[in-house]
Amino acid sequence: MPDTEHLTLEQIHALARACLMDNGCDQANADAVASTVTHAERDGSVSHGLFRIPGYVAALRSGKVDGAAAPRTERLSPALIRVDGGGGFAPRALQHGIPLVAQAAEQCGVAALALVRVHHFAALWHETEALAARGLAALACTAYMPAVAPAGARRALFGTNPVSFAWPRPDDTPVVFDMATASMAMGEVQIAARDGHQVPPGTGLNAAGEATTDPASIADGGVLLPFGGYKGSVISMMIELLAAALIGERFSFEAAEADNQDGGPPRGGEFILALSPQRMAGDDWAGHAAGLFERLGQLDGARLPGQRRHTRRHDRGARAVNAALVEKIRGLCK
Amino acid sequence: MPDTEHLTLEQIHALARACLMDNGCDQANADAVASTVTHAERDGSVSHGLFRIPGYVAALRSGKVDGAAAPRTERLSPALIRVDGGGGFAPRALQHGIPLVAQAAEQCGVAALALVRVHHFAALWHETEALAARGLAALACTAYMPAVAPAGARRALFGTNPVSFAWPRPDDTPVVFDMATASMAMGEVQIAARDGHQVPPGTGLNAAGEATTDPASIADGGVLLPFGGYKGSVISMMIELLAAALIGERFSFEAAEADNQDGGPPRGGEFILALSPQRMAGDDWAGHAAGLFERLGQLDGARLPGQRRHTRRHDRGARAVNAALVEKIRGLCK
Repeated sequence: MPDTEHLTLEQIHALARACLMDNGCDQANADAVASTVTHAERDGSVSHGLFRIPGYVAALRSGKVDGAAAPRTERLSPALIRVDGGGGFAPRALQHGIPLVAQAAEQCGVAALALVRVHHFAALWHETEALAARGLAALACTAYMPAVAPAGARRALFGTNPVSFAWPRPDDTPVVFDMATASMAMGEVQIAARDGHQVPPGTGLNAAGEATTDPASIADGGVLLPFGGYKGSVISMMIELLAAALIGERFSFEAAEADNQDGGPPRGGEFILALSPQRMAGDDWAGHAAGLFERLGQLDGARLPGQRRHTRRHDRGARAVNAALVEKIRGLCK
Repeated sequence: MPDTEHLTLEQIHALARACLMDNGCDQANADAVASTVTHAERDGSVSHGLFRIPGYVAALRSGKVDGAAAPRTERLSPALIRVDGGGGFAPRALQHGIPLVAQAAEQCGVAALALVRVHHFAALWHETEALAARGLAALACTAYMPAVAPAGARRALFGTNPVSFAWPRPDDTPVVFDMATASMAMGEVQIAARDGHQVPPGTGLNAAGEATTDPASIADGGVLLPFGGYKGSVISMMIELLAAALIGERFSFEAAEADNQDGGPPRGGEFILALSPQRMAGDDWAGHAAGLFERLGQLDGARLPGQRRHTRRHDRGARAVNAALVEKIRGLCK
């Protein structure tokens, strides 16, 4: 195990915020990103926590990302919101877009949020859970940079292309999943490489196009495979189409071609769908859904997605953070 | 190979239509179902073609399905259409719902169709391709009866829960996938059993909860597994929530509990989403998407989903149909 340092959630937020402001973020952008990072550490989602700060900082220092971006919102129809992130980090643009798409979904039953000109470097459950907290089911997806070979191929075209879905439960945390359509998220592969672990067969190919269980050889010039073979591959393709072609943003391969390779997130888009069970199913929707979750809970070996993360959330104590990472982040502050 | 009989597409349609009308369908319902069956045979999607007629007939004969159902449509918001199928087969209800949800998506950019009180026994690409033909991206999903064990469990809770997505291409067939979130559709498992083939490892468990490659022992009291392990399992769960909880219809387990076990499709719902790239991305959307498909086509081993089926479609000649099946269907006519 690597050395760890214990930080409270307040300390994690303050460290992230200070580091971002020291590197060009205004207060509003720094707060938005620091909250996202802190929520990830709180939930034990460490590959999207402080681990991301060096990448955020690299993108600010290179000038690729505008740390003082002011998102612009447009309501294109009663059910369609577009937020132009102005080349900033996604959490700031989401602060504008989520309340508007929630309101649209409450009115129309279904609504979409097209997030463009943003740099997304976080988990997607932040946004789907924010919608679920308002009683809405939500789907979110984004592309990234080519890291996944389509089924049958040996060269990367798709991003790790995560997708998150959340189902609201009144007076409880939502049922939510958030997963790469790669066999594994590249962040997890990087952490496995850092910590000296192997990855399962089927995770990816090395630079020569051969199957391997060594995460370092996948991360270093190799390629991830989609989860579930051909079926996972077409879902990854669908995410390229929703998060890029549908909303007029860049495919993973276009994002990589336009990127300055500073190690931070490329410019891209995010597609978010909000759905109102209240509008479609009526008053009984929550009790009805609870019946499915109850059946699932009765099966030996099955589990409700998201619950392990939410259990960690209830612990308000300090978190053990990789000490070398904390040192690195401190070194990135003024 | 089993004996086959060659039927033209017109003969396939006439056989299906006559058999349905002889068993209680009115002309409109018989035409809608016969067209769906014929399109499946045309495309080589035989597990959803004439193979389904005995099940359709069983549901008419038992009185479970109303062969003269008249769907009722409601526009719940500018972006939300509900069609109550009146306890009939889904193809008739879709004839009402698809034009309305297409119009709503053209106006709003995003629209949803909630199909309730229908009996769905067909592929989903019929409806997603119908929307793609109008320049819309489309997603459709439906639940069925428990046949799939959630990841980690040994007992069925989820249906085979298919999902289809279609992306429109002007002057060309759409890019479209339609797949069970089971490792394999039960229709395919049944056909493999009928034809004496084995299925791949990971397809399912036998009645004792053990892995097997014998399709008959999966179909006979066993259980399918989700594709892609845990990740495929949560997608199957999402489909239960979209096609049942969201729109106020039955989960797979509820559909099975209410079903009369006549071998025909249970009552359930379908969720359909229509999205306008024109409204979201503007005039350049089709050329932009073509760039992704071109890259995909350049990768050795990769392929565009749906194209093999569309290639078969261009053959307007007779189709070789299992002769015993044709005989069985003729025996179901008056």
